[in-house]
Amino acid sequence: MSKPLILVVNDDGYEAKGLEAMVEIAKTFGEVVVVVPDRTQSATSHAITMNVPLRVNLYKTIDGVPYYRTNGTPTDCMKLGEKVVLKGRQIDLVLSGINHGSNSSVSLLYSGTMAAAIEATFDNIPAVGISLQDYSADADFTACVHYGKIIVRQVLEKGIPPYISLNVNFPKVPLEDIKGIKITRQTKGYWHEDMEEHIDAMGRKYYWLSGYLVNTDNKEDSCEWALQHNYISIQPVQVDMTAYEAMKDIKFLEDEFKR
Amino acid sequence: MSKPLILVVNDDGYEAKGLEAMVEIAKTFGEVVVVVPDRTQSATSHAITMNVPLRVNLYKTIDGVPYYRTNGTPTDCMKLGEKVVLKGRQIDLVLSGINHGSNSSVSLLYSGTMAAAIEATFDNIPAVGISLQDYSADADFTACVHYGKIIVRQVLEKGIPPYISLNVNFPKVPLEDIKGIKITRQTKGYWHEDMEEHIDAMGRKYYWLSGYLVNTDNKEDSCEWALQHNYISIQPVQVDMTAYEAMKDIKFLEDEFKR
Repeated sequence: MSKPLILVVNDDGYEAKGLEAMVEIAKTFGEVVVVVPDRTQSATSHAITMNVPLRVNLYKTIDGVPYYRTNGTPTDCMKLGEKVVLKGRQIDLVLSGINHGSNSSVSLLYSGTMAAAIEATFDNIPAVGISLQDYSADADFTACVHYGKIIVRQVLEKGIPPYISLNVNFPKVPLEDIKGIKITRQTKGYWHEDMEEHIDAMGRKYYWLSGYLVNTDNKEDSCEWALQHNYISIQPVQVDMTAYEAMKDIKFLEDEFKR
Repeated sequence: MSKPLILVVNDDGYEAKGLEAMVEIAKTFGEVVVVVPDRTQSATSHAITMNVPLRVNLYKTIDGVPYYRTNGTPTDCMKLGEKVVLKGRQIDLVLSGINHGSNSSVSLLYSGTMAAAIEATFDNIPAVGISLQDYSADADFTACVHYGKIIVRQVLEKGIPPYISLNVNFPKVPLEDIKGIKITRQTKGYWHEDMEEHIDAMGRKYYWLSGYLVNTDNKEDSCEWALQHNYISIQPVQVDMTAYEAMKDIKFLEDEFKR
């Protein structure tokens, strides 16, 4: 492959440390263009912007890499990158992240990082989302950059199946403690959530969402198991959410109306 | 079952005509509580609110049904309904919608309506999202209400498998033209999208997202086929997005790091 064209997007916004880590990975391999939100867009899932006009503007160029920011969501970043910024050019790879915080288990469904990667696969562009199990703004991305380069090189050289994105999650451990890579499936689980009640200066109630992931799985082939045992988890992701097994169980609904 | 407790949520907001249609269905069967966004939240997917405090307030009570609205997303509506409004009470069914516009094929991934239903299943609450293939504000929900009552009655009487939600889509046809119900799988397809360029009063460019669904499937067991042939589509939905078939295809990534 000649120098590939790589679009970098994220959900943590243009000031995130994880963005610079991803650009460092991307620059190793090709021409890089960055399109990211103008503020944090964590947990915006696959939201798209339909009720306000979208803006996208170049805000800096560093070492030949143009950085654009937009008022849109992570999914909008992917669309704006493809349709407006890189209009008419073939994108070889979309890299999303590096996210501050893991996107394992059902966090995948809430994740803006992975939604942007999934959006790329709708146009059959290979896409890799990378996340680190550390929410802090000054998280250490050293291991992510080191192994991220090796993973991206492999993806560019050997390819991944069509219409599939990769959900890559790094454990929060130093580079030397990473045990290797596991290809995993999505861990069964859910977020146990509470609504913390507070009172504002006017005496009115308001709420903050809080919670933690409950793992109901713990099997060795799951993404959470890999992270807990200091492996990098790589999960291939597809978009069919049909519960095939359940189709026969709700057949009674169809039978009611056979004509 | 004694009188079931039904939580009604939506993504079109508290003024949507589809909300009243859903309340009409729900009131037939049980005690109804409504928790909906204070503005349109279409295409907000599974977004949750983490950076601003959430508010939830009773804004009216009609025929004994309390209506609450919130600044949150559809998924937040489900969480606020469960944790704040109905704190400590067992919800028997979540009904989401009725959505103005279909949620067939990959629209499922962008849908706030279905995200709220899916969120309910994380707590193993049965959930049904209903959508009508008509985006207009004054869409005719007559057929949805008629058949919706029959579907909800069946769901309450016979149950649906655990951790499964139903994605119910109605074709835009009069009641008498509905041919029946098909249990379907998610249609393969994608949104072909463009970014319409406009110029504001200051001479600056802005963009509106536009697009249409491209159906790459057309098989008889798909949701789009059902809608196109005037059937109601009912699709069981689960949350594991792992591409199991692709796991072997990316095994090379794991092998690189075997220790």
